[in-house]
Amino acid sequence: MSNTLKVIFHVNEAERWDIALGNITNLLKDVGEENVDIRVLANGQAVLAFSDEGRVQRMKELSDRGVRFLACRNSLRNLCSTSDVCISEEHLPEFIGVVPAGITELIKRQSEGYAYIKP
Amino acid sequence: MSNTLKVIFHVNEAERWDIALGNITNLLKDVGEENVDIRVLANGQAVLAFSDEGRVQRMKELSDRGVRFLACRNSLRNLCSTSDVCISEEHLPEFIGVVPAGITELIKRQSEGYAYIKP
Amino acid sequence: MSNTLKVIFHVNEAERWDIALGNITNLLKDVGEENVDIRVLANGQAVLAFSDEGRVQRMKELSDRGVRFLACRNSLRNLCSTSDVCISEEHLPEFIGVVPAGITELIKRQSEGYAYIKP
Repeated sequence: MSNTLKVIFHVNEAERWDIALGNITNLLKDVGEENVDIRVLANGQAVLAFSDEGRVQRMKELSDRGVRFLACRNSLRNLCSTSDVCISEEHLPEFIGVVPAGITELIKRQSEGYAYIKP
Repeated sequence: MSNTLKVIFHVNEAERWDIALGNITNLLKDVGEENVDIRVLANGQAVLAFSDEGRVQRMKELSDRGVRFLACRNSLRNLCSTSDVCISEEHLPEFIGVVPAGITELIKRQSEGYAYIKP
Repeated sequence: MSNTLKVIFHVNEAERWDIALGNITNLLKDVGEENVDIRVLANGQAVLAFSDEGRVQRMKELSDRGVRFLACRNSLRNLCSTSDVCISEEHLPEFIGVVPAGITELIKRQSEGYAYIKP
């Protein structure tokens, strides 16, 4: 549909997730899930949230309403080599996709007309 | 005019206003107010600034030069329920518009060709 | 080439450079330097990094691979009047360009189809 809104949210800090998830919830409430295509790209320290059960549960509920969550593979690997936490792709919740490089995803989607929002 | 620049600034933290207002002042100085269509969308904690007289005065001066300031209704309501400060829409300075959901505004304007800037 | 990706990175805080330079390195690795046109606009406190030898060296390496670094003239001047550090345009490393107003650059490039990323 030509009237569908398209947006990619960029989350690169763990502490911005609450704001991002709140933004998305408000957006769905405002326009209705059938009228918007929402992607959420997590890179940097933001991928840490994928090991946090409470956060993952909130994401899952949004995923069930059509929101696509994407993790940057580079960031997952960096996390393993630089911190105590290691989230392997195989152990990611099933609804979370993985892209080779998060930044490339952000550029490609914008070139396709997705709006960019940094919560 | 096809040469008019169009931009929407996204301010979602109270402490980013000085930078945002400085950016806008520099932009107007650089291109001239007749050559740019500037919107400023405030959501999250950034709406707090609308109760700060000094800040509102600076915004008013920019508004007089054509800049449109917009507050997110969701954020105004959240503020009332989560902090001691409550800014009702009726008490907002007249030059500040209100949109139902700030995120929707950011997406729609980008789909119309507005550049996005997060100060 | 119509398939070239185009992106402008916006860095306005000194402490975001490591993330920005890491993002750019990953991007070049992912798509290849011949397939992407990368600009990096520094304004605000981010221009401080241009006096940091280690950072400038990393930028130079990326510049040699085609990345264009741009400093905001307003920000360079503000720095001189508000801090102990003063970086005059003449003393900037040669590979760093200067634009009169960084915000204008961000808007113009987006109007030409560059994606915007705030690391």
